[in-house]
Amino acid sequence: MGLVKGLKCRECGRPYPADPLHVCEYCFGPLEVDYDYDALHGRLTRKAIEAGPPSIWRYKALLPIEGEPIVGRHCGMTPLVRAKNLARALGMREVYVKNDTVSHPTFSFKDRVVAVAVTKAVEFNFKVVACASTGNLANSVAAHAAEGGLPSFVFVPADLEQGKVLGTLIYNPKLVAVDGNYDEVNRLCSEIADKYGWAFVNINIRPYYAEGSKTFGYEVAEQLGWRAPHHIVVPAAGGSLVTKILKGLKEFDRLGLLSGGCHTRMHVAQAEGCGPIVTAIKENSEIIRPVKPKTIAKSLAIGNPADGYYAYKAVKESGGHGEHATDDDIVDGMKLLASTEGIFAETAGGVTVAAAKRLIEEGRIPRDESLVLCITGNGLKTQEAVASSLKVRFHIKPTLRSFDEAMASHDIDVTAG
Amino acid sequence: MGLVKGLKCRECGRPYPADPLHVCEYCFGPLEVDYDYDALHGRLTRKAIEAGPPSIWRYKALLPIEGEPIVGRHCGMTPLVRAKNLARALGMREVYVKNDTVSHPTFSFKDRVVAVAVTKAVEFNFKVVACASTGNLANSVAAHAAEGGLPSFVFVPADLEQGKVLGTLIYNPKLVAVDGNYDEVNRLCSEIADKYGWAFVNINIRPYYAEGSKTFGYEVAEQLGWRAPHHIVVPAAGGSLVTKILKGLKEFDRLGLLSGGCHTRMHVAQAEGCGPIVTAIKENSEIIRPVKPKTIAKSLAIGNPADGYYAYKAVKESGGHGEHATDDDIVDGMKLLASTEGIFAETAGGVTVAAAKRLIEEGRIPRDESLVLCITGNGLKTQEAVASSLKVRFHIKPTLRSFDEAMASHDIDVTAG
Repeated sequence: MGLVKGLKCRECGRPYPADPLHVCEYCFGPLEVDYDYDALHGRLTRKAIEAGPPSIWRYKALLPIEGEPIVGRHCGMTPLVRAKNLARALGMREVYVKNDTVSHPTFSFKDRVVAVAVTKAVEFNFKVVACASTGNLANSVAAHAAEGGLPSFVFVPADLEQGKVLGTLIYNPKLVAVDGNYDEVNRLCSEIADKYGWAFVNINIRPYYAEGSKTFGYEVAEQLGWRAPHHIVVPAAGGSLVTKILKGLKEFDRLGLLSGGCHTRMHVAQAEGCGPIVTAIKENSEIIRPVKPKTIAKSLAIGNPADGYYAYKAVKESGGHGEHATDDDIVDGMKLLASTEGIFAETAGGVTVAAAKRLIEEGRIPRDESLVLCITGNGLKTQEAVASSLKVRFHIKPTLRSFDEAMASHDIDVTAG
Repeated sequence: MGLVKGLKCRECGRPYPADPLHVCEYCFGPLEVDYDYDALHGRLTRKAIEAGPPSIWRYKALLPIEGEPIVGRHCGMTPLVRAKNLARALGMREVYVKNDTVSHPTFSFKDRVVAVAVTKAVEFNFKVVACASTGNLANSVAAHAAEGGLPSFVFVPADLEQGKVLGTLIYNPKLVAVDGNYDEVNRLCSEIADKYGWAFVNINIRPYYAEGSKTFGYEVAEQLGWRAPHHIVVPAAGGSLVTKILKGLKEFDRLGLLSGGCHTRMHVAQAEGCGPIVTAIKENSEIIRPVKPKTIAKSLAIGNPADGYYAYKAVKESGGHGEHATDDDIVDGMKLLASTEGIFAETAGGVTVAAAKRLIEEGRIPRDESLVLCITGNGLKTQEAVASSLKVRFHIKPTLRSFDEAMASHDIDVTAG
């Protein structure tokens, strides 16, 4: 508490108070939360963190809230799974899956940012929370608003997956389906934020919201025994997550919490049908050219990513790279992760696995270095993507004879036991 | 390790070695794992448990595996949520939700039993794992078999929800859809277990499997600060969970781990369309009359529950009761939990909330006593149950004018902020 110095423009460095601001009024750069790291040094220790709750709030000193968390008390500390089978399949020595499919309460990493944003919105005395979303954020804002007893307005593209729609409506928000893609939804929401003064978590209180993503990086480092991995592959939509994971690792390093420092290479994974950040990385161009999204990875379907430039910079500065995944690759990636590790990720997880596979094959990720895959959402949310390729092959009557016949006709070996 | 004394018949008490057995060969009673509690007393302390991993394996001394866990290392320690909004809605002072919607890896409490069962199956040197399932068990067996590198056969009623089917197939098991209800599937599986010698987790290694459910009770007690609540409401299908939660609490009490002892009243929640255990409780009859299931709570649709008699006994001995929930109640219960606490449970969770509501209204659960609701599975698995009652009300063009018109035409107050 009291360790937030204020906001700071990412471009010109101009300082601002910790108010509900998000754009620099001089250069129009985005604002970011700034902390008093000198005051934290030596005070925020591994031991202090380990003695904290099993949630993102163990890192509260590095999060921009003033009081106690108001919602999302159980968010975070999802498992970091040592993925030996997947590593073998990828030809790698050391692979980990950071598994936010089991994020509390709404089964994606967006709970991390929303727990912080809604708490901050209440601290700022906002009476309504809202968001523009490709689905996961919608789920999380609606759930945390319910928990906090606040009305919520949630705006999504009208063509969203059923799991994302029902998984929002169940919490009883005002869900507004917009005929258009995310970028159009987002533009509309900026106008609504201006007109009605609601707390749009990813628009007008974005600087606070985005800080929640740092916990993904903190947890990876802590769960690896206070060290940073050689490589992290991060899916990108708006591009914020990759920047914040790197920020989190650098903060830990600056505070002396990491063994071996931070030399992590950050890699971005995007769909071929919506991969403007990866395209820029491949072309070595700082300019992110907006695209019209066309991919089954709808949670990543942001054609004009708000933090695309910063994602590009995080990748380049860290010595990482990026890769695209086709729709077929995405489904294969989902199946590979599930059939090797028993982890059912949404389409974005398939993008991450597929991109990692390519980066390994290209030699961008050496086979003897450690790799963390960011699995950010739950496969039950995007069932449409796999429904056509997962068919029930055996349909029998409830008799031993019917079972034996079905196995025989499919040449299944039943004597393996 | 070495603390398992062996198996013991629940009826005649005859001891057996810790082998893959499940029925007493003298009286045909079910076998249960027996521990050397005297050896554990004073040795298994709160401190020792708290120093363990953040998973069910912190209670390993009370689980029937010999070596280290082979699969499911990250299972358990799901949040116990203090549900203040739900408590207010129910007119209660102190309500908690034990939230296994975020169980790792397959989003239901079945991960607890399967992590133990598959580890045990490998220890017993079985080469194939299998199960009869109403869905959640199917998901979990397929996932853990994938993690353990074992082939699996999973048998389900053919009319299962899509989320349960896809959420099984993704792990690449042999999924067999059977034309019939669960009780018919289960009978068939007993024959297959006899013929092929596979490890059917809930049939021939059921005594070991079932022990995993104790961890649900252990965690509740530990998370409450080492005390047992006044009341727990547990959904019942086969009836095992309620008996094992009570067993777990009694073990903790016997080992001196609980403050204030164990006086918990266990209550059972079932659907009206498949509630044979609750019917027996209401009628004070030890005889569980099988029924033909007809309910949207398919995960609870077991008409002839294997542990029905023992569930009945656990409820009666503890001074608890039971209640039914109609299909409408179930949907209302799901919505109530989601809109008050931001927790999206599957239909079984709706049964639990609805039954708890009735038990409170009847005075069976006094309003000033503490209550824990067992939320055992994830709402994304049973979307069919709520799809027809959750419609998108606002569908607009991506313009401020279209939004304002939609709000005006629905009399929505947008000036609240």
